[in-house]
Amino acid sequence: MDAYAIAVDLGGTHVRAAVVAPDGRVVHAVRDRTRAEEGPDAVVSRLIRLARTALAECERENVVGVGVAAPGPVDPDRGVVMYPPNLPGWGEVPLARLLADALGMPVWLGNDANLAALGEHRFGAGRDVHHMIYITISTGVGGGIIVNRRLLTGALGMAAEIGHMPLIPEGPLCSCGHRGHLEALASGPSLAREARAAIERGWPTCLAELDRPPSAEDVVAAARSGDRVALELLARAGAHLGRAMALLVHLFNPERFVVGGGVSNAGDLILEPARRAARRHVLPAYRHTFDVVPAGLGDNAGVVGAAALVFEAAEAL
Amino acid sequence: MDAYAIAVDLGGTHVRAAVVAPDGRVVHAVRDRTRAEEGPDAVVSRLIRLARTALAECERENVVGVGVAAPGPVDPDRGVVMYPPNLPGWGEVPLARLLADALGMPVWLGNDANLAALGEHRFGAGRDVHHMIYITISTGVGGGIIVNRRLLTGALGMAAEIGHMPLIPEGPLCSCGHRGHLEALASGPSLAREARAAIERGWPTCLAELDRPPSAEDVVAAARSGDRVALELLARAGAHLGRAMALLVHLFNPERFVVGGGVSNAGDLILEPARRAARRHVLPAYRHTFDVVPAGLGDNAGVVGAAALVFEAAEAL
Repeated sequence: MDAYAIAVDLGGTHVRAAVVAPDGRVVHAVRDRTRAEEGPDAVVSRLIRLARTALAECERENVVGVGVAAPGPVDPDRGVVMYPPNLPGWGEVPLARLLADALGMPVWLGNDANLAALGEHRFGAGRDVHHMIYITISTGVGGGIIVNRRLLTGALGMAAEIGHMPLIPEGPLCSCGHRGHLEALASGPSLAREARAAIERGWPTCLAELDRPPSAEDVVAAARSGDRVALELLARAGAHLGRAMALLVHLFNPERFVVGGGVSNAGDLILEPARRAARRHVLPAYRHTFDVVPAGLGDNAGVVGAAALVFEAAEAL
Repeated sequence: MDAYAIAVDLGGTHVRAAVVAPDGRVVHAVRDRTRAEEGPDAVVSRLIRLARTALAECERENVVGVGVAAPGPVDPDRGVVMYPPNLPGWGEVPLARLLADALGMPVWLGNDANLAALGEHRFGAGRDVHHMIYITISTGVGGGIIVNRRLLTGALGMAAEIGHMPLIPEGPLCSCGHRGHLEALASGPSLAREARAAIERGWPTCLAELDRPPSAEDVVAAARSGDRVALELLARAGAHLGRAMALLVHLFNPERFVVGGGVSNAGDLILEPARRAARRHVLPAYRHTFDVVPAGLGDNAGVVGAAALVFEAAEAL
């Protein structure tokens, strides 16, 4: 008899559910659009409906439990989502209990970026290391940290807020209201902001010929086609990322960085400047102690990590 | 029958050995001067002699083993000191094996600041928490990090290099050759440097009346006597320390910071500015999740932590 986990990923624009096998394979997946403005009740109803659709794909007695990846901050011990900035209007929502009551199964909850780190560690680009740091770069910058093969959660489940590492005291404004955080220096919106600034300064770039403000995807596409300005913008973002990595190397002494999220589709155009900056900014003893690789699971990292949470929590029971 | 650990602390100017009881009490302590320039052979001979003196204070069959606190970087798994910058002329020295051969007992080795963190966690100011960060501020800035009651060592035992967190990209030069690290902004030598600069700028301070360049101890003493400039220098160092703490809060979500080392003798004159800066620089959700307290074990933290390493390693055998 096979054992499966139902994994649910609650995003800002989509909700997804998947049936995941113990080896991390996604054997079935469904998704639905959502809008945070619908409010918690409507979104939770969608989640429950999707989870039931996924459940219908397997024999119920073969399902170990349900894992939920939700935007942080979350309290993983109580299974509560706590005023997530990416879900405006949400307060404290006891998501794990709501799903457990509706589905009649045990439910475990985690921060989505943390669970993506767990997924990459158990089944993705970090499978063979004990100490790994996952960084996801898209609209925001998030992450998860694996210490001795275990997810670092901290006292209240709020560890690994990598996007809000301050790097430049008077740097650009971050979404959180502080200045100079990694998220304000190397994220999709920061790339788009720097592209607009480059156009305003009259730098020679094909991005100026778009009939709309350039997006991060536009910057990556232009860089791939050889646009010098777009390449420079990615190199600068990568250099900031590398400085953050150097700091993390001094604190965690990891073996590997795994980089995911939309902006990481730029591949070595951003990762190679990050590697160079990281090696330049660490003390010599650390220079050859880590590598920097792209994520292996793509969009599935969150659901696969949520499933890993279920398998490991169930085993520990 | 009582069980004791022999703990040895290898510093840049002194070597110490102690007999430590399982409850963390130092029941006997001896010390000797040393100079790194003597070279590893002479220093190791001193350590062995001191450890034997300590051993003579107890029945040998009551001793569990020997713990050594050494300046980093160290490889705790192999028991090797690795080119420590504070011990010039040392390369890779297999300190644990050398002591084990001479003493005929099992020897465990750790980074001194890491072991001080372990000591403060097991027997000092961090006894009641699960997630703690220890920062020691003296000639250098070092630390140790407790995650879920365990010492964070990282892949190669080189984690928690807190002194070399970059805080200001083009900041003052650090002892390591990089710029703007915490150690260059809040350490004994950085306080002394800022005091000299204040005097050169003609700021009104009693420090200008000394017949020598002011030391960090002079700054602390002047601040205690109400000298405004000295108070401002401590407040600035504290603000840098607090910014580093804010970053650490976002990454580790600790319950407590424990601050030790010579400069921490300034007490709230440096800790209160640090608390204020830390709370100002964290995201609102973290503001009331941590406290900042002075270390509890003073100079004994290292030997007590080395003893804790022995008791726990022996138990795990």
